[in-house]
Amino acid sequence: MGFKIGLLGLGTVGTGTAKILLDPVQRHPLVKELELYRVGVKSLEKPRSLELPPEIVTTDLEAIVTDPAVDIVVEVIGGLEPARSLILKAIEHGKHVVTANKAAIARFGDEIFTAATKAGVYVLLEAAVGGGIPVIEPLKQSLCSNRINAVMGIVNGTTNYILTRMQNEGADFADVLADAQRLGYAEADPTADVDGLDAADKIAILASLAFGGRIKLSEVHCEGIRQISAADIAYAEKLGFVIKLIAIAKRDSQLSSELEQLQVRVHPTLVPKTHPLASVNDVYNAILIEGDPIGQVMFFGPGAGAGPTASAVVSDMLNIAAILKVERGNSKQANGTPLLDPLLACSHQHYCAIAPIAELSTRFYARFLTKDTPGVIGKLGTCFGNHEVSLESVVQTDVRGDVAEIVVVTHDVREGNFRQALAEIQAMDAIASIPSTLRAL
Amino acid sequence: MGFKIGLLGLGTVGTGTAKILLDPVQRHPLVKELELYRVGVKSLEKPRSLELPPEIVTTDLEAIVTDPAVDIVVEVIGGLEPARSLILKAIEHGKHVVTANKAAIARFGDEIFTAATKAGVYVLLEAAVGGGIPVIEPLKQSLCSNRINAVMGIVNGTTNYILTRMQNEGADFADVLADAQRLGYAEADPTADVDGLDAADKIAILASLAFGGRIKLSEVHCEGIRQISAADIAYAEKLGFVIKLIAIAKRDSQLSSELEQLQVRVHPTLVPKTHPLASVNDVYNAILIEGDPIGQVMFFGPGAGAGPTASAVVSDMLNIAAILKVERGNSKQANGTPLLDPLLACSHQHYCAIAPIAELSTRFYARFLTKDTPGVIGKLGTCFGNHEVSLESVVQTDVRGDVAEIVVVTHDVREGNFRQALAEIQAMDAIASIPSTLRAL
Repeated sequence: MGFKIGLLGLGTVGTGTAKILLDPVQRHPLVKELELYRVGVKSLEKPRSLELPPEIVTTDLEAIVTDPAVDIVVEVIGGLEPARSLILKAIEHGKHVVTANKAAIARFGDEIFTAATKAGVYVLLEAAVGGGIPVIEPLKQSLCSNRINAVMGIVNGTTNYILTRMQNEGADFADVLADAQRLGYAEADPTADVDGLDAADKIAILASLAFGGRIKLSEVHCEGIRQISAADIAYAEKLGFVIKLIAIAKRDSQLSSELEQLQVRVHPTLVPKTHPLASVNDVYNAILIEGDPIGQVMFFGPGAGAGPTASAVVSDMLNIAAILKVERGNSKQANGTPLLDPLLACSHQHYCAIAPIAELSTRFYARFLTKDTPGVIGKLGTCFGNHEVSLESVVQTDVRGDVAEIVVVTHDVREGNFRQALAEIQAMDAIASIPSTLRAL
Repeated sequence: MGFKIGLLGLGTVGTGTAKILLDPVQRHPLVKELELYRVGVKSLEKPRSLELPPEIVTTDLEAIVTDPAVDIVVEVIGGLEPARSLILKAIEHGKHVVTANKAAIARFGDEIFTAATKAGVYVLLEAAVGGGIPVIEPLKQSLCSNRINAVMGIVNGTTNYILTRMQNEGADFADVLADAQRLGYAEADPTADVDGLDAADKIAILASLAFGGRIKLSEVHCEGIRQISAADIAYAEKLGFVIKLIAIAKRDSQLSSELEQLQVRVHPTLVPKTHPLASVNDVYNAILIEGDPIGQVMFFGPGAGAGPTASAVVSDMLNIAAILKVERGNSKQANGTPLLDPLLACSHQHYCAIAPIAELSTRFYARFLTKDTPGVIGKLGTCFGNHEVSLESVVQTDVRGDVAEIVVVTHDVREGNFRQALAEIQAMDAIASIPSTLRAL
């Protein structure tokens, strides 16, 4: 009673996945029941680090997802197409699906899960967020009794590596990025990572699971780390913060539950040094979940890499196989469609309401270059006050010639108010420029 | 199609559990299908913070575990008896069981799981380790593709609170313990916590899950924190360590897989400040899991308390209910016993071999009080060398009159060799006493 696996893709993750299946010793006994039945690749000629029986390898990926013998299709080719079409066709043919593809799920999750619910199959995606760190399954299963209030984390290893090096070396973004690209920690086109798009995909997926509704990716507010300077990191350090790219999804507590909206956003953030996420460095990822009644729990580990990602992919396969064993032990329902495990399946269909970023209430950090006119701090303070922006600290430093640098940190304020104040301040004669504004936890 | 819950115990955890069931809004929809059907208490007269319909509350716990209508029995009375007998009777009557009882599972897990396998029911115990922190289910499900090499963690909040305060305040054990008792962080009889017995129960459970075999609790090496002094914490600090009570289960890498043995142990440990467990303070718990291919992942959160523990208890109920929905959607097997989900069930029956502590290979810290004879460091070094104990650092400090204090940290050495060297050193004329020896990560 084995389970036939159709593996789409034999890159780093696909190879890592196949290696686990071919080496079941000391793993859960169920691994032995997963049969690597078909492997779909782009080219049969490419040299591989893994030897597979040639008869199971094919370039015809569509033949795998339509093969009646295949039980579980594993999609690790990445990208939007043909991944989306292959996943949908696999579902249409009654296959369960395991995928590591955050980009496809964040964009096409609605049609994929609608199709899966209709077909009575599972689509599992632990590897899509946090590499091998268990976070999707804990949200679905171990924490399912909780009312989740917030999910936040460091979910992109490349930007965390860059920010950690900037912090440790006092270096500027462009220099560290170039070095990270040379070392293979950042891609030649770093857009998806450094502009926060990858993190946005991941927080959209986490928000959907945490709050039991669909998320429109276009409504996720997203800012990257290109504008972070060595100066900002140094000021943050002095004020007791580190700067991290944080992805956040939380219930907007200002609104009643009737009209509940979510905040879902990705941006560089000043994190207090005492916060559990502050000490997550280098390529590591961590996800913090706040729920009632659990309080705060955090999951920490390697957020990428062949091994960790393959760990999640194969674990998902095993979870499907385990449920199928329960099901197959019994006979099918009259209508032929098996009931899905309501914790593992994703059956929510409504879209969550996302609050506009102007409604956000948060602390801000801002840095101003001023012509050192006496009274400029007074003018700043008055203008902020007029817009109900109260200041937690104001630091004036580095007077050079007639230019001074002023850094302010606000209390929790409405983002819209802060932006209005900022627009007025920008127009002041005494203000030379506003090199940076950042949100703080 | 609801699920009838028989709750045994209405203390803090029982009350927290009932509160979740009575307040399902914004939780997983499946919570609404859990019906609080019977609640067993010791006394009907005791005032409660929770109002329950009087007809569901009873002092007849046995009537609950034998009631044909009950689907899931939740044991949160704690202690060994009558908890063990009630769990066994519930299983015998075909009930699934959820328990938070680490003491009963660590001692009677073999008979409980043998009975559960025979009866075809689940016994889930997420709350038994780490309070609400998901760790049991991630080990069973999210990490099931891995070959687990080590599980280690801070799994007792009371001792972590005491050690954190000793560290921060430079205070001695007895003073902090007394204050912790006054504040309710330590019990009047603190034995189970400060002598490491509670942590031993928990690591026995984790080891059993991680390595797929049963663990004899009597073979778990266990040392508590009573002998830790402010002086040791201060020396550890200088050498770059913090002292934590660490529970460890790992494969013994010195042996071939044919004769594989495990190390399972609890003891105060010097943890390098850069280690992820070093910054886990106060009553927080954290569990670090090392596996192939995942590498290291860590789970962090509140290790106790009504809310977190109830979160785990209700999540376990929901996981059982979810599987039952899949099962009930189909008809029973011919023989009447449903097949169990092989990831959620615990079906291993062999006992793991545990290596004797003398075979352990680890780093050691030792503090010696010496009569300040010239050449005493040479004598120590020679004696250690004769027993193949190589030293990483030797620090001589605090010469007061004719007494000096010497602290050594060794490289990884065999514990048996270290103890032999220590016995010889103890007999030296130049050595006044050896106030402490501790293992280091």
